[in-house]
Amino acid sequence: MASLFGGVEGGGTHSRVVLVSGDGRILAETEGPSTNHWLIGSEKCLERIEQMVSEAKSKAGVDPHVPLRSLGLSLSGGDQKDAIGKLTEELRRRFPRLSQSYHITSDAVGAMATATDHGGIVLISGTGSNCKLINPDGSEAGCGGWGHMMGDEGSAYWIAHQAVKMVFDCMDNLEVPPHDVGYIKQAMFDYFQISDRMGLLTHLYRTFEKSKFAGFCQKLAEGAQAGDLLCCHVFNKAGEVLARHVVAVLPKIDRSLFLGELGLPIVCVGSVWNSWERMRAGFIHVLAQAREEAPGHVFSRFSLLKLKRSSALGGARLGARSIGQALPLDYAGNVDVFYTHVF
Amino acid sequence: MASLFGGVEGGGTHSRVVLVSGDGRILAETEGPSTNHWLIGSEKCLERIEQMVSEAKSKAGVDPHVPLRSLGLSLSGGDQKDAIGKLTEELRRRFPRLSQSYHITSDAVGAMATATDHGGIVLISGTGSNCKLINPDGSEAGCGGWGHMMGDEGSAYWIAHQAVKMVFDCMDNLEVPPHDVGYIKQAMFDYFQISDRMGLLTHLYRTFEKSKFAGFCQKLAEGAQAGDLLCCHVFNKAGEVLARHVVAVLPKIDRSLFLGELGLPIVCVGSVWNSWERMRAGFIHVLAQAREEAPGHVFSRFSLLKLKRSSALGGARLGARSIGQALPLDYAGNVDVFYTHVF
Repeated sequence: MASLFGGVEGGGTHSRVVLVSGDGRILAETEGPSTNHWLIGSEKCLERIEQMVSEAKSKAGVDPHVPLRSLGLSLSGGDQKDAIGKLTEELRRRFPRLSQSYHITSDAVGAMATATDHGGIVLISGTGSNCKLINPDGSEAGCGGWGHMMGDEGSAYWIAHQAVKMVFDCMDNLEVPPHDVGYIKQAMFDYFQISDRMGLLTHLYRTFEKSKFAGFCQKLAEGAQAGDLLCCHVFNKAGEVLARHVVAVLPKIDRSLFLGELGLPIVCVGSVWNSWERMRAGFIHVLAQAREEAPGHVFSRFSLLKLKRSSALGGARLGARSIGQALPLDYAGNVDVFYTHVF
Repeated sequence: MASLFGGVEGGGTHSRVVLVSGDGRILAETEGPSTNHWLIGSEKCLERIEQMVSEAKSKAGVDPHVPLRSLGLSLSGGDQKDAIGKLTEELRRRFPRLSQSYHITSDAVGAMATATDHGGIVLISGTGSNCKLINPDGSEAGCGGWGHMMGDEGSAYWIAHQAVKMVFDCMDNLEVPPHDVGYIKQAMFDYFQISDRMGLLTHLYRTFEKSKFAGFCQKLAEGAQAGDLLCCHVFNKAGEVLARHVVAVLPKIDRSLFLGELGLPIVCVGSVWNSWERMRAGFIHVLAQAREEAPGHVFSRFSLLKLKRSSALGGARLGARSIGQALPLDYAGNVDVFYTHVF
């Protein structure tokens, strides 16, 4: 068979695999659950990767025992050198016929490699959140990405947590919420199938699953859509805190990234961006304020880009590059500009 | 042998068992690790209780196969009816010779039963936090006690988390800390034995232990003691948020509780209260403000009480009461008034 290059997009809730030919054509795609090794453990992570890639080989009609040339993994939780080193080693040892070589990067780096060759900002808000700046010279800076115990601000988990916490604090008389908690309280009881707050403790401790908890964000998005003021408030706060991630890396952005037609390109990854309209006011407010506090800066516009293709594709590209092979990708076809703001 | 009554104090980090004779004398005491069933699971919780009580029986020189008359358990995480029902049932089924009867309450209720018969506020700040008002007529109101995923404000866990989060946010350029993070950053690296922030992820996710994480609070207390401004800042915030728990239950406090010589009695449980001097300004500020916003209220003074005896003693008393037996306790000898404030 012809040389095949594989890519994995590993999220906190869903994962995808793509197989690409040397000339950049996509030959097969598969889906699966989370492959974030922090959330599910290395063992499950490895098993799921093997399963999805083998399935993709079958779909592409190739012999599952003939290894791919390379497998590039773009994983949420793929930031820590030690853990990544161990994962890579395990993949090599246990699945020598899955791929000849393995290359793991973070989900942010994989997303960027899917969108462009020129750098920009990747702002992830899916199950978790993360912000990564990649300059044209390859230098990086980041903000966030520490998971739900130490950050994840603006993510689906965070939005769900903020909402639930406001209900708890209101019922405890600890905080006065800015709007009525009625909708969120009922939605919380329905989503978690509980009859009081005590019932939530099992979901938070004994049977905690981040993706299940984060899934409540979808109900809040529906509430915001229907005009519930407290849901709208939470999404507006999410917009603010996501923008603060951009402000955090602002001083490190290479000047050239501001100067293109689109202004600063921000690649937006994750399902929370489906609620962009609800986050917009907060997002723009924070960026406008940061501009005012640093007058004379070249930051005069920005654009939000959405991937039309899985960042498994960028993973495949980086995996191929790691063995000296350039995969031709149609960048323009991979992204949509869904919003441009001129200050 | 004479009738024996047992009590358990189950914390998020340590536990204690006490055996009491019918005339209120303490015959034996033992210690052990956490028996919070949310943190360690029911199985371990049951085993540890059996082990500590059996050990106490040996210490008291009684036949371990002769059951106690009653065992009263005052457990952190002992608030949820369903879970408590199951735990009680399991204790009965598995350890019929440990005790003739079992009675489980929350740690707050057990602490109150150790301190007084007349009610007041129990404000727990140990590994976790919780606030419970018990009125003279037995009616209760609470604020907090939802664990580290949904609260625990002002607890050792929360203080440790606030401090670590400020280091992360400062290094990410996401937030400007009110004071230099140098001391806390180094203390964090030392305590968790890590060389960078990535190293902390294992402690937060893969090998998370609440009591280990909360233990970092001790280093922050030492920092505050040595005058580190950011440590002092965090403890002051802890004082504020603990006071806000009192403010939350203020409207439900029976008038008579304000009128004693000590003013409103607040039983302070947990090792964070060892840092009272560092929390005092924030604590008083919040209460003074709440008074101003509700002028004419009888709330003119309050006193902070510390237990001199384990709240296992209160547990024993409540366990005995549940089978119609009154254990005489020397309340005055069980508490110390360590602070009185007159507004």
